[in-house]
Amino acid sequence: MTLTSVLSPRSVAIVGASDNTDKIGGRPIYYMKRQGYAGALWPINPGRDRVQGLPAFPALDALPGVPDAVVVAVPGQAAIDAVTQSAEMGVGAAVIIASGFGETGPEGKAAEVRLRDIARAGNMRLIGPNSQGLANFGTGAILSFSTMFSEADPQDGPVAIISQSGAMSGVPYGLLRGRGIGVRHVHATGNDCDVTVSELACAVLDDPEVRLLLLYLESLGDPAMLARAAALARARGVPVVALKAGRSERGRRAAASHTGAIATPDRVVDAFFAKHGIWRADSMAELVHAADLYLAGTGGTEGGLCVISSSGASGVLAVDAADLAGHPVADLSPASLSALRDTLPAFAGIENPIDLTGAILSDSTLLPRAAKIAADDAGVGALLVGLPVSGKGYDVEGMAAGAAAISRTSGKPVVLSAAQPRIRAAFAAKGVPVFETDHAAIRALSQVARHRALIAAADAAGAGPVERDAGGGQGRTLSEPDSLAIAARHGVPVVPHRRCTTAADLKAFIATQDGPVVVKAISAAVAHKSDHGLVLTHIDAGRDPETVLATLKERMEALGHPFEGVLAAPMVPAEREIVVGGHVDPVFGPVVMVGDGGIAVEAMPDTALLLPPFSDDAVRQALDSLRIAPLFRGFRGRRPLGAAPLIRAAQGVATMLADGGVHSVDLNPLRVTPDGGCAVDALVVTAAQPDLVKGAGQGDAMEKS
Amino acid sequence: MTLTSVLSPRSVAIVGASDNTDKIGGRPIYYMKRQGYAGALWPINPGRDRVQGLPAFPALDALPGVPDAVVVAVPGQAAIDAVTQSAEMGVGAAVIIASGFGETGPEGKAAEVRLRDIARAGNMRLIGPNSQGLANFGTGAILSFSTMFSEADPQDGPVAIISQSGAMSGVPYGLLRGRGIGVRHVHATGNDCDVTVSELACAVLDDPEVRLLLLYLESLGDPAMLARAAALARARGVPVVALKAGRSERGRRAAASHTGAIATPDRVVDAFFAKHGIWRADSMAELVHAADLYLAGTGGTEGGLCVISSSGASGVLAVDAADLAGHPVADLSPASLSALRDTLPAFAGIENPIDLTGAILSDSTLLPRAAKIAADDAGVGALLVGLPVSGKGYDVEGMAAGAAAISRTSGKPVVLSAAQPRIRAAFAAKGVPVFETDHAAIRALSQVARHRALIAAADAAGAGPVERDAGGGQGRTLSEPDSLAIAARHGVPVVPHRRCTTAADLKAFIATQDGPVVVKAISAAVAHKSDHGLVLTHIDAGRDPETVLATLKERMEALGHPFEGVLAAPMVPAEREIVVGGHVDPVFGPVVMVGDGGIAVEAMPDTALLLPPFSDDAVRQALDSLRIAPLFRGFRGRRPLGAAPLIRAAQGVATMLADGGVHSVDLNPLRVTPDGGCAVDALVVTAAQPDLVKGAGQGDAMEKS
Repeated sequence: MTLTSVLSPRSVAIVGASDNTDKIGGRPIYYMKRQGYAGALWPINPGRDRVQGLPAFPALDALPGVPDAVVVAVPGQAAIDAVTQSAEMGVGAAVIIASGFGETGPEGKAAEVRLRDIARAGNMRLIGPNSQGLANFGTGAILSFSTMFSEADPQDGPVAIISQSGAMSGVPYGLLRGRGIGVRHVHATGNDCDVTVSELACAVLDDPEVRLLLLYLESLGDPAMLARAAALARARGVPVVALKAGRSERGRRAAASHTGAIATPDRVVDAFFAKHGIWRADSMAELVHAADLYLAGTGGTEGGLCVISSSGASGVLAVDAADLAGHPVADLSPASLSALRDTLPAFAGIENPIDLTGAILSDSTLLPRAAKIAADDAGVGALLVGLPVSGKGYDVEGMAAGAAAISRTSGKPVVLSAAQPRIRAAFAAKGVPVFETDHAAIRALSQVARHRALIAAADAAGAGPVERDAGGGQGRTLSEPDSLAIAARHGVPVVPHRRCTTAADLKAFIATQDGPVVVKAISAAVAHKSDHGLVLTHIDAGRDPETVLATLKERMEALGHPFEGVLAAPMVPAEREIVVGGHVDPVFGPVVMVGDGGIAVEAMPDTALLLPPFSDDAVRQALDSLRIAPLFRGFRGRRPLGAAPLIRAAQGVATMLADGGVHSVDLNPLRVTPDGGCAVDALVVTAAQPDLVKGAGQGDAMEKS
Repeated sequence: MTLTSVLSPRSVAIVGASDNTDKIGGRPIYYMKRQGYAGALWPINPGRDRVQGLPAFPALDALPGVPDAVVVAVPGQAAIDAVTQSAEMGVGAAVIIASGFGETGPEGKAAEVRLRDIARAGNMRLIGPNSQGLANFGTGAILSFSTMFSEADPQDGPVAIISQSGAMSGVPYGLLRGRGIGVRHVHATGNDCDVTVSELACAVLDDPEVRLLLLYLESLGDPAMLARAAALARARGVPVVALKAGRSERGRRAAASHTGAIATPDRVVDAFFAKHGIWRADSMAELVHAADLYLAGTGGTEGGLCVISSSGASGVLAVDAADLAGHPVADLSPASLSALRDTLPAFAGIENPIDLTGAILSDSTLLPRAAKIAADDAGVGALLVGLPVSGKGYDVEGMAAGAAAISRTSGKPVVLSAAQPRIRAAFAAKGVPVFETDHAAIRALSQVARHRALIAAADAAGAGPVERDAGGGQGRTLSEPDSLAIAARHGVPVVPHRRCTTAADLKAFIATQDGPVVVKAISAAVAHKSDHGLVLTHIDAGRDPETVLATLKERMEALGHPFEGVLAAPMVPAEREIVVGGHVDPVFGPVVMVGDGGIAVEAMPDTALLLPPFSDDAVRQALDSLRIAPLFRGFRGRRPLGAAPLIRAAQGVATMLADGGVHSVDLNPLRVTPDGGCAVDALVVTAAQPDLVKGAGQGDAMEKS
């Protein structure tokens, strides 16, 4: 069932309609009248004939027809009754404003589930409960009581905001309206018991007017639906920026107590957003700060920044800001430099940053003329115009018109940084994205450029399905030889090794080796074996195998575990120890990790996550995002470490998690040199219910048949 | 000579006075009249009897007296003539607005030096050239032509802004005035040919009204003067925030071409600011964003943040923002939790973040009552009130008054975050620092808390003198044994070693050792000896010393260098290789570095700088700031690495640089275990003119006598 009935309803009933335009049951009526809602508006109030000048009805069953949407503005049992009656009548969707459900605890959660079941039985969709409501300023269907629509005047426009929290839908709306940006959709979904932010995002992307989608999420229970929304957005060229609360451990706890939702490790959310081309904002400010720039729709992902300012100091700060943001700064071509030299006064600075000096006071055309030269330079991707101080005597309107024209003709972003509100307003009026400081301007330019790259990568990779954990969590821990065997079967390069239970076994293995070997006691029960003296290195033919086995047996038994033999393997050279691992997240499915190994794993983590399926190139990029990336590039004449075995290992872990009845894998470490590498230790934990896992389950079934 | 003559002149003459209030020569007169300047104001213009209604004079020598200050608003030779005449007359100070001097190149620089010499001969101080001028809104002495004073109305207040750039004095002035904050001093010094930003900072700190000092610097040629200003500011309790352009390599280049000043490596500037308790802002926004909070003068460096919001979502985001900023979040005491439970509705959230919910719409006293409980909690250092959306029906004034009262009585900062300008204005009117987003509020709280800690550390350490490079740069590179010897003499723990030139020497040394040794060819000419096979490890009594020597001799000679013997030393165990080094900066004097050693030094730098003199504790803090800090704390049951040998090494390097005729030192690596550590390699470069270095020079002289 589509969500047209709540986004563009032909008729809306308000249960609990009020004459008071500041009450929850009064606001939606007031807003819909104000916004010129063209459909039927049916207040329901058993105590009144008219509400806010409209004829009122005593009950849902007294309405002249079945409404597309019902706003439930009554609490408790009355809300449940209204939902029940609506579902029976064949209403399309109900927006439940009442709180006191899932967010209050298990009892409220149970009531919420009953609500949802009632709605489903009647083929009705539910928004909420605990929702501030939905608002579509394109149709005037404002099924919302947000205070913000009184505080900041609405204006239809290209932005859609979808949020679980009502407040966090109002804040970006207010910030954008304060900057004069039009907003069409402002939807707050509350507890998401039926319709989620992600499903609403898909619906809103059907609206051709929407050109920028902003999301606020506290929980993310339906990543597959969000992946679908992201794919739709990419297909339509609509950038998606999301603010996901719970970056910190305490924030996650607070969010969980606030919404009762599963808290996913934050880095998994990061990886998920990146994979699907969604820009994750770090703060409310970052959610909206690049909106003008996104909406300008200019290119400029390739090439560096060119800074043009009336102050040398401002130019220097802008270049610093670009460097801090990791945004490239253009080197102007000799032709551009020559043209600038001919155009600008002798005391102007012509190398990027271009310093026009106070000369623009007497000749404001210097700005557009210099900007034109810069915009025509193939190495320039975007222009930042800095006017730190200007006023009387400056032709601000002329400069604004010039900057806007150059952006239009070149297709490259031209943005303004100015501390004075009046100057910003003049440029904004011409359609130039404006910022209070260079720093803010460059952060926005950098975000849009990096976001475009993410989107391009997501398009290139293809979305890929989101698989939840079908294995039902953690099963049992396998021994090291069993773990290595599974890993090897999935293409992971592992060290040649032998399980030995007798001195003769061990002696025979050592004889096959060119150099000394490492001998470890086998046990699934003991982690960190080297900390317990259970790993003996540099064992060669000169050592007595009996003594080696006896030593390890004694130590293992001292720890209270049975001796299960040893694993012998050659001592593998390494320039670095790397870790590759993975687990199945209950919400996001398989997650693979690559990172610096050894003691760094725990004390100084340096890791990157990958969500399968991923390309070999994605593994290379993950390695390149690590602090230890220089090791894979080579430096000071050293040969780069080989990435190939790590790519095989990461892909192997991905297939183990997808098909192998495996809950988690740790390959720690892989010993790596410029010439290759292999896992010398592995730890696999099976899925609790491996039969549920598709590959393994099918395989077993086929073998049995 | 004090700078009173320009900050509070009794009389001001303007050379090049204009009737046009938008001209450089007209603006200062207009501004001084507007601000009610009470002293004598003498326009000089040979063509007019009156200028802007004031009697005008044809020349400096026609004035009724000697002015305290002269504003030189004429260009080129006329400016030089005015300075010459002023100096001869006994004028106290001249502000040279004219550009075309040091910033244009060597010729302009020479003219600037002549100007300075003329002024010095007359005991007159110079501001500029290329200066926008000085403005004191306390006295109305506006010797400045800044456009910003027309764009944003002045109001006297507690902030002083001192900047080399005119534009970068106007921007913070405009931003602060836009937020209603009063500004007294706005000084732009231009080329700093005589009076520098730092000296002016010292002078402004004599003004008891100044409670916050903001600096913008492009070059920093007089760190000793800035250190003095910082000490004065600390003594007076005035926080100093500085924006120093040139964070990036390109920014430094642009700044250098813009000002012609020496570019100092940016991390040295960081270390210098930190040592003296100056907060370094990363951007213009950061220069001003915490101004209200500084001026509130509240405490709150100890204890964590408590967030009180009307929206659960807002609280979660605030806690996330605190985590991102590394700002502690308070755990409320059981007593506070119990009091909150008694005070707030059952559905409110009482654990930090405190979620008041929409209940404040019907009872706005919930906010001050909850805030009072939090402020009384000893674990709480500061309160953030978040009102993401409010408006009609909310008692905003009452909540603002309550928040302000709690800050006053508790002495703890209480700040507001609200997206709506109207709500912010209501709280600001009661003296509550206000921010548009939680993120901004917490960055400001975090900055002020961390800045207070810097100031406390600077006070505890004592400023210490700033020594410039007296050694005249880099001399010759010493061999490894010579380098180790100097290091050892200065207290650096070094590996026991022997220089051997014969097989008998080497054999004898090996015989004194318990284990195998490492043998390296000696040469000051070859860096990275191990890359050239010039380091042989695991040499024991079983190896033929003749062969060892012959091998190294052959390899050294193959590189085209003479064989100078070998250095033999025991193989020292290491859990980590650490680097300690230092050099003498031509502007800032000795700089000491500690960091992760091995391949990390070049490929993945992880280092911290220290400016001598520093305490042992400062070295511990430097180690604690490294990525590898966990190694010095211990983890997973491992014993922490010993910091003691690194402290001795850092202090040793500091004394070598201060006294030893040394230009630079590299102790790379020090091999460190939990039980100790020592330098196993050292490289010392002498100062070019070691006789100029105080310690070494004196020592030599005494030995010769």
